[in-house]
Amino acid sequence: MQSEPNPGKENQEKPEMAVAALAPATPLRFRTRSTLRFLSFYPESIPRILPTIPKTLLKPHALPPKFHRLLPLSGGPQPRSFCTVISGGLRSGEKTKPEFKEDRIGEMGDRVGLFRKKLKIADIKGGPDEGLNRVGQTLVVMGWVRTLRVQSSVTFIEVNDGSCLSNMQCVMDMEAEGYDQVESGLVATGASIWVQGNVVKSQGSKQKVELNVNKIIVVGKSDPSYPIQKKRVSREFLRTKAHLRPRTNTFGAVARVRNALAYATHKFFQENGFVWVSSPIITASDCEGAGEQFCVTTLIPSSREAADSLVDGIPKTKDGLIDWSQDFFGKPAFLTVSGQLNAETYATALSDVYTFGPTFRAENSNTSRHLAEFWMIEPELAFADLNDDMACATAYLQYVVRHILENCKEDMDFFNTWIEKGIIDRLSNVVDKDFVQLTYTDAIELLLRTNKKFDFPVKWGCDLQSEHERYITEGAFGGCPVIIRDYPKEIKAFYMRQNDDGKTVAAMDMLVPRVGELIGGSQREERLEYLEDRLDDLKLNKDSYWWYLDLRRYGSVPHAGFGLGFERLVQFATGIENIRDAIPFPRAPGSAEF
Amino acid sequence: MQSEPNPGKENQEKPEMAVAALAPATPLRFRTRSTLRFLSFYPESIPRILPTIPKTLLKPHALPPKFHRLLPLSGGPQPRSFCTVISGGLRSGEKTKPEFKEDRIGEMGDRVGLFRKKLKIADIKGGPDEGLNRVGQTLVVMGWVRTLRVQSSVTFIEVNDGSCLSNMQCVMDMEAEGYDQVESGLVATGASIWVQGNVVKSQGSKQKVELNVNKIIVVGKSDPSYPIQKKRVSREFLRTKAHLRPRTNTFGAVARVRNALAYATHKFFQENGFVWVSSPIITASDCEGAGEQFCVTTLIPSSREAADSLVDGIPKTKDGLIDWSQDFFGKPAFLTVSGQLNAETYATALSDVYTFGPTFRAENSNTSRHLAEFWMIEPELAFADLNDDMACATAYLQYVVRHILENCKEDMDFFNTWIEKGIIDRLSNVVDKDFVQLTYTDAIELLLRTNKKFDFPVKWGCDLQSEHERYITEGAFGGCPVIIRDYPKEIKAFYMRQNDDGKTVAAMDMLVPRVGELIGGSQREERLEYLEDRLDDLKLNKDSYWWYLDLRRYGSVPHAGFGLGFERLVQFATGIENIRDAIPFPRAPGSAEF
Repeated sequence: MQSEPNPGKENQEKPEMAVAALAPATPLRFRTRSTLRFLSFYPESIPRILPTIPKTLLKPHALPPKFHRLLPLSGGPQPRSFCTVISGGLRSGEKTKPEFKEDRIGEMGDRVGLFRKKLKIADIKGGPDEGLNRVGQTLVVMGWVRTLRVQSSVTFIEVNDGSCLSNMQCVMDMEAEGYDQVESGLVATGASIWVQGNVVKSQGSKQKVELNVNKIIVVGKSDPSYPIQKKRVSREFLRTKAHLRPRTNTFGAVARVRNALAYATHKFFQENGFVWVSSPIITASDCEGAGEQFCVTTLIPSSREAADSLVDGIPKTKDGLIDWSQDFFGKPAFLTVSGQLNAETYATALSDVYTFGPTFRAENSNTSRHLAEFWMIEPELAFADLNDDMACATAYLQYVVRHILENCKEDMDFFNTWIEKGIIDRLSNVVDKDFVQLTYTDAIELLLRTNKKFDFPVKWGCDLQSEHERYITEGAFGGCPVIIRDYPKEIKAFYMRQNDDGKTVAAMDMLVPRVGELIGGSQREERLEYLEDRLDDLKLNKDSYWWYLDLRRYGSVPHAGFGLGFERLVQFATGIENIRDAIPFPRAPGSAEF
Repeated sequence: MQSEPNPGKENQEKPEMAVAALAPATPLRFRTRSTLRFLSFYPESIPRILPTIPKTLLKPHALPPKFHRLLPLSGGPQPRSFCTVISGGLRSGEKTKPEFKEDRIGEMGDRVGLFRKKLKIADIKGGPDEGLNRVGQTLVVMGWVRTLRVQSSVTFIEVNDGSCLSNMQCVMDMEAEGYDQVESGLVATGASIWVQGNVVKSQGSKQKVELNVNKIIVVGKSDPSYPIQKKRVSREFLRTKAHLRPRTNTFGAVARVRNALAYATHKFFQENGFVWVSSPIITASDCEGAGEQFCVTTLIPSSREAADSLVDGIPKTKDGLIDWSQDFFGKPAFLTVSGQLNAETYATALSDVYTFGPTFRAENSNTSRHLAEFWMIEPELAFADLNDDMACATAYLQYVVRHILENCKEDMDFFNTWIEKGIIDRLSNVVDKDFVQLTYTDAIELLLRTNKKFDFPVKWGCDLQSEHERYITEGAFGGCPVIIRDYPKEIKAFYMRQNDDGKTVAAMDMLVPRVGELIGGSQREERLEYLEDRLDDLKLNKDSYWWYLDLRRYGSVPHAGFGLGFERLVQFATGIENIRDAIPFPRAPGSAEF
């Protein structure tokens, strides 16, 4: 059983871990400019937005300070407001047709709506001195209680706001305003709180600073049935609580690293002049062929009534066939299995493009490596061959891995300690080393020569199985990513470019330890006659490929691309074993909750 | 009929336009380091990747120079290779189990796979001096022929590679290698070519530099049936050629600006500490209620067989109902209409999150403002109220608009001239001015007082129609974005927070000229009792909302968010009238081609 390290516990066991670098996942966070701004977060609306607090608790002194207007810092730039409230002038009845005039903005009423940024724990503890620069400041933290330890004279509350793995340790004595909420049990694991206090040097070794609490307010209490209590809970159990699991250390860290990988993906392609193209999700084009696709239809009534739909209610022709002419798109439509063919149309206009969007497989495989819905990244390069493609895939992978090693240090340390020992070394190798590249033919030879016994026999022409891939990456090349190229054309897709030997195609797969195939790509067949021959060989209907073939009729160019399953990348980068834990809301056979 | 300015023609009519700023859409593009690298783009594989060229044309002299290995620049840093080829050692039979050893990399064969970057036209002409810094360089451009003008002694070829709106003007005389391809008509509109030449100052006023061609190769010829010829073609016609339309000026510019808006969206949220969350596309949760949803099923055979499926082939229970237990997810499943409820689960763990993904509406509305499949951006802020929400929406819109004004100058000038006169002023206003904010009640009063006659009568409680929205943004407030807040609860969704007046909810809509509602948001009802009452009022089944209600049971916090239809933003930012031209492959009733 996989288990989730409980909040706080690993810090007690491994004090050295907690002092690890606390760089926030996103170092680009705006810097808040003054304590004044933090205090003014709930300017006028605090009574309105705290209604879950029992009335007895809402003593006047328990409220945070009110500021009716954000005062500009003297000497500093005037904070800019974004909205002008139109109200008073209208009510007074003076104007019947209030034309907008710039010079009236000033008169028109209060300016509201500075884009206030909450001070987050990552802002406080994420700097190079882990918060020491803020010692002496009074500030406010808002988040969820992870643990509470009541000792004789002081109470320790660990608060987390998800901006980083670290909690803010809040220390309070009985003098603090709102301490009665601790006594009455309202400050419990899972509750949301607002705490104001002074930043002080921490006595403990787990953190550099902590908060000496002046005032505490329970914003939202937590029912005792809260399922994520101190005890370790299994990841399998947490999958049934997908709405609450991001509040755990593991899933919070996965969410932040997943986010960093996604942003690094965009950064890499944008910095290299690629244009993001949204390939369609629903497609009535039946040229994606092979994959098991989900059908998308409005012939079945939507939502609640669907459960009680009669089969006879589905429109049919006089022959008893489904009458697709009455469906939304006028013909059968499906969820996409790949955006590649669409991306090719844009690559042959804009040169370099990439997709990053969801794709779908209706495969009935309940494994730790498959999802019915997953995100895919598919770059497509014009005027490029297989070598360019492999180089791009390698540069991409190194870029995103370097990005998380540099920007998600705290979360990566957590994975290194709790999820996969040595993952940081493994990923550092990916960044630093050259990747190994060999042909399929050489890979087969390598597999035939080893003494290792495989369940699936090896011979030229066979598809590589997981056991083969694992031997190649983990055994033969000691954990280095390996690119295998030039596969037999029979085991690869119709659009891959035929090599001069007539037997192989310019395809490549990148294999990585633990995950296996992470990237699959190819140079595309840009020669019209070759492509048409291949469609004929495979008995595919050329008419449905008319637009794809058009790309070869009008200004065809050598082009290449690859596909990468984003959740596999998340697995690879975090060490998370089950792919269902690498996406917020996994979809698999029998499972589409939430 | 909308018409597409033909390639090149608008430059002839408006010579001043072509000299407008040529900043590339993505200024982050890597700088290529030396001419040597450009020349070595097709190092060994040129004969292999040019097979569509008739053999008679493949004279040896027509081939670009070959470089077998990329030579490191003397004195400069050694270019880094990404792959190590494993081949020779294996074939020689010396090793039966080739363990990977670092020190063997050097011996193991050629290094290949530098991530070569093609030199693009934006790289050449996109700098501040529009290419003058490259005068005297010999370089290679690859792209598609837009126009060809053969004069007595010289031939002008306009080449476009999609990296920017500008073409590279290539000038050649009969001495140039490969000139016979011009004579034989192969260099035609739509063909792809490889040209090598010297950068010289241009004689024309349309551009600062042009290319004096030494050598030309037709990479892929263009069949005379190429549908995008010189004459203007309508946008309606181009929708039937969605695979080729990105090769036109308008759709190339839309694609680049769409890309810039998407990247700016990620940048804005990442810089402000938001975490990107992928909300699920397929959902069996029926709590999204109202919307008309697409059903997702595997009960109908996939792909080619679907067209001939018998209604009787669909599994049914003994009562004749559809037997959902046999479907992929074991119950009815649908395409999401919004990721908001899912985003709320992550916001109440990570504080600030956003989604950016496709959403779907099975509405049978064939308008210029609706798509069946569209991308949506949905941020969700914890510990935030409606004011924070409005401020965030405003800051977001100003950020992305400023981004394209600064980074897509050339494309924006094109829209300003050809699509919507004055769009740059309109967008600059959005960046510079305060937005107007008023309550729904005030908006109704304003509409009642005007002398303007509306088709739909106005009274408190009614939904605002397009004509009302247009009057407010375009008439009353002179083109300034307007935020209307505090709508009657009866016309808004169940999850919006009830205001103290008991009649209105903390909702807001942002209206902009031309597009109407661009953003809709609200503070969410975080009080369990209020939310449950509201579900009861609307006769919604509380059980299906168990996980959504859990967020209010365990550490509920005030939170708020908004949704923005990305294609509406593209319309707003480009002036494109029909939303089907704002997405690469539009989906609408009866239309899911490509």
